[in-house]
Amino acid sequence: MRIALDAMGGDDAPREVVAGSILAVQAHPEIEVVLVGDPDLIQRSMDELVPELAPDQTNRIEKRLTIESASQVIRMHEPPVEALRRSPDSSIARAVALVGTGRAEAVVTAGNTGAAVAATHQALGRIKGIRRPGIAVVFPTTGPNPVVVIDVGATVKCQPIHLFHFGVMGDGFARTVLGAARPRVGLLNIGEEDEKGNELVRKTREFFSRSHLHFIGNIEGQEIFRGKCDVVVCEGFVGNVVLKVTEGMAEFATRYVKKLFAGDDSPASHRVQSGLSGATDFSSYGGAILLGVNGICIIGHGRSKRRALSNAITMAARYIQARVVEGIINDLRSTETKNSQTAKST
Amino acid sequence: MRIALDAMGGDDAPREVVAGSILAVQAHPEIEVVLVGDPDLIQRSMDELVPELAPDQTNRIEKRLTIESASQVIRMHEPPVEALRRSPDSSIARAVALVGTGRAEAVVTAGNTGAAVAATHQALGRIKGIRRPGIAVVFPTTGPNPVVVIDVGATVKCQPIHLFHFGVMGDGFARTVLGAARPRVGLLNIGEEDEKGNELVRKTREFFSRSHLHFIGNIEGQEIFRGKCDVVVCEGFVGNVVLKVTEGMAEFATRYVKKLFAGDDSPASHRVQSGLSGATDFSSYGGAILLGVNGICIIGHGRSKRRALSNAITMAARYIQARVVEGIINDLRSTETKNSQTAKST
Repeated sequence: MRIALDAMGGDDAPREVVAGSILAVQAHPEIEVVLVGDPDLIQRSMDELVPELAPDQTNRIEKRLTIESASQVIRMHEPPVEALRRSPDSSIARAVALVGTGRAEAVVTAGNTGAAVAATHQALGRIKGIRRPGIAVVFPTTGPNPVVVIDVGATVKCQPIHLFHFGVMGDGFARTVLGAARPRVGLLNIGEEDEKGNELVRKTREFFSRSHLHFIGNIEGQEIFRGKCDVVVCEGFVGNVVLKVTEGMAEFATRYVKKLFAGDDSPASHRVQSGLSGATDFSSYGGAILLGVNGICIIGHGRSKRRALSNAITMAARYIQARVVEGIINDLRSTETKNSQTAKST
Repeated sequence: MRIALDAMGGDDAPREVVAGSILAVQAHPEIEVVLVGDPDLIQRSMDELVPELAPDQTNRIEKRLTIESASQVIRMHEPPVEALRRSPDSSIARAVALVGTGRAEAVVTAGNTGAAVAATHQALGRIKGIRRPGIAVVFPTTGPNPVVVIDVGATVKCQPIHLFHFGVMGDGFARTVLGAARPRVGLLNIGEEDEKGNELVRKTREFFSRSHLHFIGNIEGQEIFRGKCDVVVCEGFVGNVVLKVTEGMAEFATRYVKKLFAGDDSPASHRVQSGLSGATDFSSYGGAILLGVNGICIIGHGRSKRRALSNAITMAARYIQARVVEGIINDLRSTETKNSQTAKST
């Protein structure tokens, strides 16, 4: 499997990105990575990092890491659409183009999220029938299964049909990737009752109620992490706030507990410190996937270090294997079939 | 100070509510509580709980706990306005009425939030100049000061002027209660840049930029807990999601760490378990305050136990002393003066 990696995206690019690609190909012999960006900077990072490996590994790994030149970089806070127009040879645009021409099967970036969404949208197009793309993030829960939240920021302002499409895409994702046989889909709202919330969620309920999806109604914020459903649907603005509040709380909780153990050198303290490192990575764990486009695009946190980037690359490989885009297309087809059958029978 | 307490509000009412009132008057000799609700049920809880006290305390405490009869109860999930119309003798309506007639200086409830907002709004009226009430919650941060988030659910759908008023009220609250000399006010958004977000936040920025408030611009979800500002302003729908996601994450983090210590009986383990009990109460800590109405209304979590209710009563007493309503009225007045001066000078 060949994965295009935006080597210039992220706060610690290209060094941590290159390091992440080395970790990923080391752990997964089936993965090849195309590092897209400034060839000199990428080569310099590789020259520094590769000699750290065991000599017998070097050759095997270098063969699976290739460099694709891109002369421009889109910075974190540039306005996405404008930046893409100004920088046609940007690393993110070039990386996405590799997927468009079939030279890679997925793209991974820890750079400007808006630019990644816009570049993928422009180059690969939307899945037929989907009006707006959505970014999906997988969260752990206290239940046996994780939960996917969609959209966390691709479509800031939504109409009911957009939220409904997020539900269809989340359903396809939960089936193909999370192995849920009949995903329970919930709508993020501020109360359990039907009449709660704003006009958007009230109207969206009607779409879900008439669909073939296993819609379980409203989900409140505190229930996301309780494993009450497999898919949580929300508008991009709200989902992005959820994602970031989760990150902030994980950070807060980590500091809180670490303070309890300040200066403590006991085995219990060590266990908690290392356990918490896992919890802190919670939100930057791997990355988010852009759904609704004709291809796989994984978006990592801007602060991603090598381990998070390696996870994002591995995630991309898993989604390629799970055929997540085809899963959504099939789900959408059966939605259309069932809806037209319902329309005929009524 | 006399505080009206909705003795029938909350999942464990009236027992935990009565217990909370006993804790509060025990700890604070200046507090008197009027327990509003079914007199028989309240008396039964008191008969059970008061004998647990030391004999010399019993008399002193019973004198500061009085009962006010109310024959109806509004349940957690009843539609607020309809329920208030149907139940004119509800405990929440009667408790608020005590403030309206000057027999109490604040009301505290752990019952139906919507009913508390509507009852207070109807009986006490809005502060002149404020268009919509907002619920404010104080969160701890990793910085030296806490942060107040407003609105967490009173006004689900907002216009820019409503958000601006939340900022003015948050500013008054932070000055009078949190002791911030010049509160930094931030607008919850999904990016740092001016052009980010939806139309509501973009238009609200203009109000803040032209005001006398110390507006620091956009605040992202992860920054709420970092002490970057003293007041975070958001629409009720979004704020309610923030509140509940915070609660859900606190719950998740607590379980996560407790699992790390399962079966561990070391001192470190005990320290963490008791430390975490504090962290779990995080979101139910005391309660939220309804701002924008002519009086003090504290809204506790429906799941509040005696300690949380006692905290909510103590909080009400602190806000009475801080003259929080007057603080907001003064803030609003100076906003109007400065705005009219600005209007004249331009």
